[in-house]
Amino acid sequence: MELIYGSTMRKKWIEPALRFLPVGLCISALALMLKSKEGNENGILEYKHVGAFRYLAYANGICAAYSVLSTFNSVVPRSCSLSRAWFVFVFDQAFTYLMLGAGAVVTEVLYLAYKGDEKITWFEICPYYGRFCNRVAASLVISFLALLCFIPLSLISAYRVFSKYDPPSLCKKDQITSQS
Amino acid sequence: MELIYGSTMRKKWIEPALRFLPVGLCISALALMLKSKEGNENGILEYKHVGAFRYLAYANGICAAYSVLSTFNSVVPRSCSLSRAWFVFVFDQAFTYLMLGAGAVVTEVLYLAYKGDEKITWFEICPYYGRFCNRVAASLVISFLALLCFIPLSLISAYRVFSKYDPPSLCKKDQITSQS
Repeated sequence: MELIYGSTMRKKWIEPALRFLPVGLCISALALMLKSKEGNENGILEYKHVGAFRYLAYANGICAAYSVLSTFNSVVPRSCSLSRAWFVFVFDQAFTYLMLGAGAVVTEVLYLAYKGDEKITWFEICPYYGRFCNRVAASLVISFLALLCFIPLSLISAYRVFSKYDPPSLCKKDQITSQS
Repeated sequence: MELIYGSTMRKKWIEPALRFLPVGLCISALALMLKSKEGNENGILEYKHVGAFRYLAYANGICAAYSVLSTFNSVVPRSCSLSRAWFVFVFDQAFTYLMLGAGAVVTEVLYLAYKGDEKITWFEICPYYGRFCNRVAASLVISFLALLCFIPLSLISAYRVFSKYDPPSLCKKDQITSQS
């Protein structure tokens, strides 16, 4: 029995594609964020004025760099060393968490920027900085698309690590096969 | 070769303990959040007035319920069926992401509540609602402790699923053992 991914290893392009896609996505999201600047009679507003937006920009920059490296790692002839598999797995998990955290934070701040929260006197800013908000929103959507690549990657690398171990002693393979 | 967790399956208490701990943690975090209400001359402020705080309360409630069920699942005599392992794995991942997202969002909003962001005229509220902010902060810290249980649990359940599969065809076990 081999996992779907394993049984279709001839489709070697799946993993490099999933690793390469975030390069373009993260760079696009980063570029949009960097360009999200708008001025009016109230003053100039840009991404660096809001901590959450800076965080998403950094996360996209770091994830783009990691995606370049991990794409390279996935296309060069690979060794099957366990340490390498663990290395990729830990980083895939960490970057998935990083993008998820950044995406969640920006979603909340953008929601407040659109809707405001009168109870705590944080009023909406998007009616005055529409173009700014739209660009940040576009950057956020693209970041979530990148996250949609990172999640299956973290599953693939988990599979690559843990399939090299024997199952827990209570659940040996013969037993599993007969029961699953 | 068997993973550390697998080789120490005699220490059967590790997984149930990690599953049971979040029950207490999430309930404590939820209770603190529900009690984070403060009034002064500016009005009454409570957790339900801030979307992010509501989200963390819901997340803690749901995770406490899931932790009860998954503790029960981890202590009853288990079948080794693959579908059950997948089921637990998917939920462990989902709840890890849920808690991480909620924690990240509340961290950001609480940061804004303490520090404010003058550029977008969102002023700090904690100087006026100190007890409220402290309780939310305590709830957040406890939620992150629960997250620290969910992360290793999602690794354990990933191990339980993927160790039942053969490694990718390019990396068969003999090859791995000699190279790792």
